[in-house]
Amino acid sequence: MKTLREVLADADARHVAVGHFNISDLAALKAIFEGAKELQLPILIGVSEGEREFVGVKQAAALIKNLRETYDYPIFLNADHTHSIDKAKEAAEAGFDEIIFDNSQLPIDENIKNTKEAVAAIRAIDPSIVIEGEIGYIGSSSEIIEARPEASLTLSTPEEAVRFVTETGVDVLAPAVGNMHGLLKSMTTGAADAEHKHLNIERIKEIKAAIANTSAKFMTLHGGSGTEDADFTAAAQAGMTIIHVSSELRLAWRRGVEEGLKDPNEIAPYKIVAPAVPAIKRIVIDRLKLFNP
Amino acid sequence: MKTLREVLADADARHVAVGHFNISDLAALKAIFEGAKELQLPILIGVSEGEREFVGVKQAAALIKNLRETYDYPIFLNADHTHSIDKAKEAAEAGFDEIIFDNSQLPIDENIKNTKEAVAAIRAIDPSIVIEGEIGYIGSSSEIIEARPEASLTLSTPEEAVRFVTETGVDVLAPAVGNMHGLLKSMTTGAADAEHKHLNIERIKEIKAAIANTSAKFMTLHGGSGTEDADFTAAAQAGMTIIHVSSELRLAWRRGVEEGLKDPNEIAPYKIVAPAVPAIKRIVIDRLKLFNP
Repeated sequence: MKTLREVLADADARHVAVGHFNISDLAALKAIFEGAKELQLPILIGVSEGEREFVGVKQAAALIKNLRETYDYPIFLNADHTHSIDKAKEAAEAGFDEIIFDNSQLPIDENIKNTKEAVAAIRAIDPSIVIEGEIGYIGSSSEIIEARPEASLTLSTPEEAVRFVTETGVDVLAPAVGNMHGLLKSMTTGAADAEHKHLNIERIKEIKAAIANTSAKFMTLHGGSGTEDADFTAAAQAGMTIIHVSSELRLAWRRGVEEGLKDPNEIAPYKIVAPAVPAIKRIVIDRLKLFNP
Repeated sequence: MKTLREVLADADARHVAVGHFNISDLAALKAIFEGAKELQLPILIGVSEGEREFVGVKQAAALIKNLRETYDYPIFLNADHTHSIDKAKEAAEAGFDEIIFDNSQLPIDENIKNTKEAVAAIRAIDPSIVIEGEIGYIGSSSEIIEARPEASLTLSTPEEAVRFVTETGVDVLAPAVGNMHGLLKSMTTGAADAEHKHLNIERIKEIKAAIANTSAKFMTLHGGSGTEDADFTAAAQAGMTIIHVSSELRLAWRRGVEEGLKDPNEIAPYKIVAPAVPAIKRIVIDRLKLFNP
């Protein structure tokens, strides 16, 4: 089976993107895995610091390793938005395939200093782990929000991208290109005129070209939920090798569970969450098709 | 670390019972494990055929094995109410510690014939697996029910217990002694005068004495949810080595999730299920204390 690094190199060469979906429960994991298998596409499962705290760092690693081995399937595990060196080391020791060290909330100088330190700490534990770093502010978590944070409108520049990658030595760069974490309320209406996020495809191309000769062979698009369909495909073609979608799946989970609770006598957790599975699977398949046109 | 067989022998010698709790999601598993750890008691995690179908047979095995190894803790996995030889073999091959082959819905002759066959099939895969068989009707699943099934009032007799164990060779016997699967609505009110299940402690003692010189060194009480507190302790002292509680935890899970859904903007699964964790943990601790006075 290909390693994650090989899977990313293959996707990059074909100008498609590997889907990255977050989980903190078994229903979402089941749905995402079924969706990926249906399309026979490799997949990245993400667990943020909060999700890891709940699931258990080693439990998450055991679940994904077991699926990979049982089904001989390219499913990989990412330590999403890791803010401290200690948490990065914990994920590295547990056998994660990718670690995103995210100090993008700090000024660029501090972000570079800390990310460089994280890269050294992770490589010392396992040099095969794919390490991602982030620049620019795109909001902070996958939830329903009232208004777009003003700061998330500022795009990363090719210059800071080159400086960040060169000084830190990361394998993957996550820039701010119009993307944003979470979903605006106006994006969750399900109506035909629901709002969508729009990406700056030109800026993606500029950054991709600028870092061509650095350590960062790949780029990641965070905060994909609610993005205009055509922008997903254009982003993959412009150089995004990994695309994250989380809030959309979370919203489908919540709505599925609300559906499952309608029977007042039903108390089995797996029956109550059951309606979430096909709903999440549908989104995963639809998104993966856009990333792999 | 002790094997499950050693853990059961130890509990049996001390006239206490090992708690058995079912899971189909990570919140319940987390809560049960935390409760057991707080009391430093060994624990059995059960997954019924439906729960296994949802969680994944090998995923369940990976989760429990990982907890056992990570925490060096006596947590074991049981294939609860397995109705077919194929499902029993699947669990045996996945590394389950216990398998309950349950054909108690059939006439005793057929139950014996099929259970004997299951015992041979499981032993051929792994002779260390603890095998349980069931006699008598105690209802069919862990849910909220309107009225007690009339048939569940019929108690198992010492004679049929001895015949069943002798002819099947099971390690553990689950008899019908006034217990019942599920919870009556009148048991879920939370009021001081809420109804409770009552066990026939004398019959437990009679069956335990009758099977003393057979292969079945242990007995299991199924359908513990809603049982009178004093009956739990008396049942353990009378010879029940494993006690199952499921519906109570499921009800706490549902109520916890309903609580978590009260914030209309919250969509993170692990935050929505979070209120269920302390609620389930509280029940687990309270029940374990009754089994281990």
